[in-house]
Amino acid sequence: MTPSNRPDETDAPEAEVGEQQGTKRKPKVKKRELKAKIRALEAEIAETRENVPDEPLYGLTPRLEAAVMRALEQERLPIIPRLMRPLHPADQADLIERLAPEQRLTLIAAMGATFDADILAYLDATVRDELVGTLGEEDLTRFLSALDSDDAVDLFGELDEEEQARILAALPAKDRIFLEEGLNFPEDSAGRLMQREMVVVPSHWTVGQTIDFLRTVRNLPDDFYDIFVVDPGHRPVGELALSHLLRAKRPVRVSDIMRKDFRKVRAEMDQEEVALLFRQYGLVAAPVVSEDDRLLGVITVDDVVDVIDEEAEEDLMRLAGLGESDLYGSLWDTTKTRFPWLVMNLLTAIAASLVIGMFEATIEKVVALAVLMPIVASMGGNAGTQTLTVAVRALAMRDIDTRNAMKFIAKETLVGSLNGIAFAVLVAGASIAWFGDFEIAWIIAVAMVLNLVVAGLAGTLIPLGLQRFKIDPAVASGVFLTTVTDVVGFFAFLGLATLFLL
Amino acid sequence: MTPSNRPDETDAPEAEVGEQQGTKRKPKVKKRELKAKIRALEAEIAETRENVPDEPLYGLTPRLEAAVMRALEQERLPIIPRLMRPLHPADQADLIERLAPEQRLTLIAAMGATFDADILAYLDATVRDELVGTLGEEDLTRFLSALDSDDAVDLFGELDEEEQARILAALPAKDRIFLEEGLNFPEDSAGRLMQREMVVVPSHWTVGQTIDFLRTVRNLPDDFYDIFVVDPGHRPVGELALSHLLRAKRPVRVSDIMRKDFRKVRAEMDQEEVALLFRQYGLVAAPVVSEDDRLLGVITVDDVVDVIDEEAEEDLMRLAGLGESDLYGSLWDTTKTRFPWLVMNLLTAIAASLVIGMFEATIEKVVALAVLMPIVASMGGNAGTQTLTVAVRALAMRDIDTRNAMKFIAKETLVGSLNGIAFAVLVAGASIAWFGDFEIAWIIAVAMVLNLVVAGLAGTLIPLGLQRFKIDPAVASGVFLTTVTDVVGFFAFLGLATLFLL
Repeated sequence: MTPSNRPDETDAPEAEVGEQQGTKRKPKVKKRELKAKIRALEAEIAETRENVPDEPLYGLTPRLEAAVMRALEQERLPIIPRLMRPLHPADQADLIERLAPEQRLTLIAAMGATFDADILAYLDATVRDELVGTLGEEDLTRFLSALDSDDAVDLFGELDEEEQARILAALPAKDRIFLEEGLNFPEDSAGRLMQREMVVVPSHWTVGQTIDFLRTVRNLPDDFYDIFVVDPGHRPVGELALSHLLRAKRPVRVSDIMRKDFRKVRAEMDQEEVALLFRQYGLVAAPVVSEDDRLLGVITVDDVVDVIDEEAEEDLMRLAGLGESDLYGSLWDTTKTRFPWLVMNLLTAIAASLVIGMFEATIEKVVALAVLMPIVASMGGNAGTQTLTVAVRALAMRDIDTRNAMKFIAKETLVGSLNGIAFAVLVAGASIAWFGDFEIAWIIAVAMVLNLVVAGLAGTLIPLGLQRFKIDPAVASGVFLTTVTDVVGFFAFLGLATLFLL
Repeated sequence: MTPSNRPDETDAPEAEVGEQQGTKRKPKVKKRELKAKIRALEAEIAETRENVPDEPLYGLTPRLEAAVMRALEQERLPIIPRLMRPLHPADQADLIERLAPEQRLTLIAAMGATFDADILAYLDATVRDELVGTLGEEDLTRFLSALDSDDAVDLFGELDEEEQARILAALPAKDRIFLEEGLNFPEDSAGRLMQREMVVVPSHWTVGQTIDFLRTVRNLPDDFYDIFVVDPGHRPVGELALSHLLRAKRPVRVSDIMRKDFRKVRAEMDQEEVALLFRQYGLVAAPVVSEDDRLLGVITVDDVVDVIDEEAEEDLMRLAGLGESDLYGSLWDTTKTRFPWLVMNLLTAIAASLVIGMFEATIEKVVALAVLMPIVASMGGNAGTQTLTVAVRALAMRDIDTRNAMKFIAKETLVGSLNGIAFAVLVAGASIAWFGDFEIAWIIAVAMVLNLVVAGLAGTLIPLGLQRFKIDPAVASGVFLTTVTDVVGFFAFLGLATLFLL
């Protein structure tokens, strides 16, 4: 039974005890009965504590969410820490995301000191920015100290300069240094992704010395999977997996069992590159080094999973002209962010309309053209979008580059031709069935083939071209593509009609 | 220096020695000189060996790729294993993907016994299917034994029944059992994703016993990060990270330091769910259990990274009606796979044309309508696509469900209204500037607002509705959406024009 079953009853005991203090003189209550009552109440409280477990094992359920919202609405704030405590920080972050903005602040205030700093690491970026803006300096400092260095740098980077200055002054020296150094790295780089906390041993140590070190040193990272071996210049020379350390005997030198063929990541490397590296080689951790090869930190695969998620989401969003803060942004922010891409598309549509406008006289004479013309344009757009999607994805995964681009372009053009012919037949058939006019039928057939071939070409050349000019293909390709397929579609169809029907 | 710098010279020594065996009587070559020559050649071979390291440290470069292709074209096959050896299996897989189909077979034959089974695990699925179809039984059996159990099950599942039966007969017992059991799990489930090789200790053991076990047992997995603690019924009761094992003293009981709050994965769980779990809680490994809670295997985060990649790619591809084998599929397969979605879109376009057809008379009278009408329809499609993209992504990440759907639908409808009004103004202005007609201007303005509001509604209701009927929103939403926005766009614009302009 979850605590949300009986939130009211958890408060009730006090009320019941209070009721017994009436003004009228009641029959003398025996001490025995009072003691029994107290025991019963204590048992009930103990049972409630059992129902609200201590370990963060539990997930978010609709009933718990409803209970939390009820508590917020009825301003029964003391119960909130107890309701939240059994949740893993990731689930607490989920619940916070689902609340309305004002409710979030109330909840966090109600949680007080029980608010686990890690929640901030799991929180959606837009929601976190909002919250961080409202947190007091004391809380911020406490959180920054508690978070892993990569999450702390993330959080810290979102504060404005004044706040950053004040908080730096309040932090312990080590945290302050890590934060300042972290911010020196470009955003979205390996330097920002890495954790500074890691286990490092000198190359001349033995397995025995290492194990003794691990057993006695105090502030080891909570979880680590590899130990890094460095030379006297603090440059990484080997990676030692714990599974290999454990298997070796004590006198063996660390340098004899360490892996020398590990992959190093330069601190300035873009996080997308890092993610690609991890995926390509199935890495679990990789050391991060400075320009002069000194070991700075480590990136672990769970951080990379976050990056992969982010990047996949970004690609999807960018293809539709969306920004990252769309889902949680305010009405105004969301509207504003979507506007520019829609304007680009409006210009595309107007360009297509200008082409149609060139053939007003033709349409006036053969109105069937107005009815059929959107078909050619839209099929071009659809086929082109297919090619574009494959191209953008393949470019991102490095499956296509200048060397095999020709092969890809040729293939897409041929696919466009084949499907173009197929759809030319279909649509010619449809227009004969509809208008009974064979001339329109072959005109629309030819226009269809033309447009689908052009769509295949455009769907490859546009992203490849943008990539060549170092512009992210995902962002602009879609708009350029529809411009091309619309213009070519209308022009081919109406142009052929003007030439042959009038 | 990479071997590709001097492929010809590596062959040369034999030729040079042979040349000295001429038919003409040459001056007597001194033994001294011959020995010196031999020493020089041996030194060169040693230097070559140094420069061609045994460890797979190197990445794929254009020059290496060219060298391999040259070797294939000139049929200098013995040199190929040497060229390939310094590459990591993932990079060897990349190179194989970039070759033409016939070249792939030649290369693999040339590599013979040096062909690392792991390459198959890194290979694109389409290419792998192709190759596996051509491999002999002996090779297949060898590879299946060498691969990790999850990769082996993958590969095995792609063979036809006859081949599977023959190979099962040829495999060692343990491999055979793992394969058969693996296939009992549904495709794309945790049971297929897991590795059977793991380290398991009984709950009554001590740290000392565990470490001794790790030092003496022979066939440990190459890399592992956690040890699983089981009860006598082989049910997992705890997870013990190596970092914690190392820190404890020998007499400590494993059950005292193990983590009890680990997350178990049921073997039937879908791999998408597993990936979501790993991402949500930042897991590195999770034990997989059977229905009766027995420990079957472990899923590690690098497998999940592959799943995340796959799923992200699938979503992107499905939104454009593409199948997974698009990039590497043959011309015919690719054309065939894209056809159905294009047909769906053709039907959409025809439906929109039918709507336009209802207003032929109106268009005949006011041709400007034919010029402007695509603008309204396409803006609806674009705005609706934005909403749809956010909705599909949010549904996949579980950020939206039936509880907060209303909030999302309301927000999108409002965003649609706001942008609708903005674009109504813009497009009315454009049509006044173009045609100087105020009546058309307000008609197109009203149609624009209407279509963008409908786009916002459709962009949310369609994916939510499909989800409710257990249909993947990513697949069908796009087509339904454009049907709605095209039909509503044309109908609103032309309908209002018919009502008010004639």
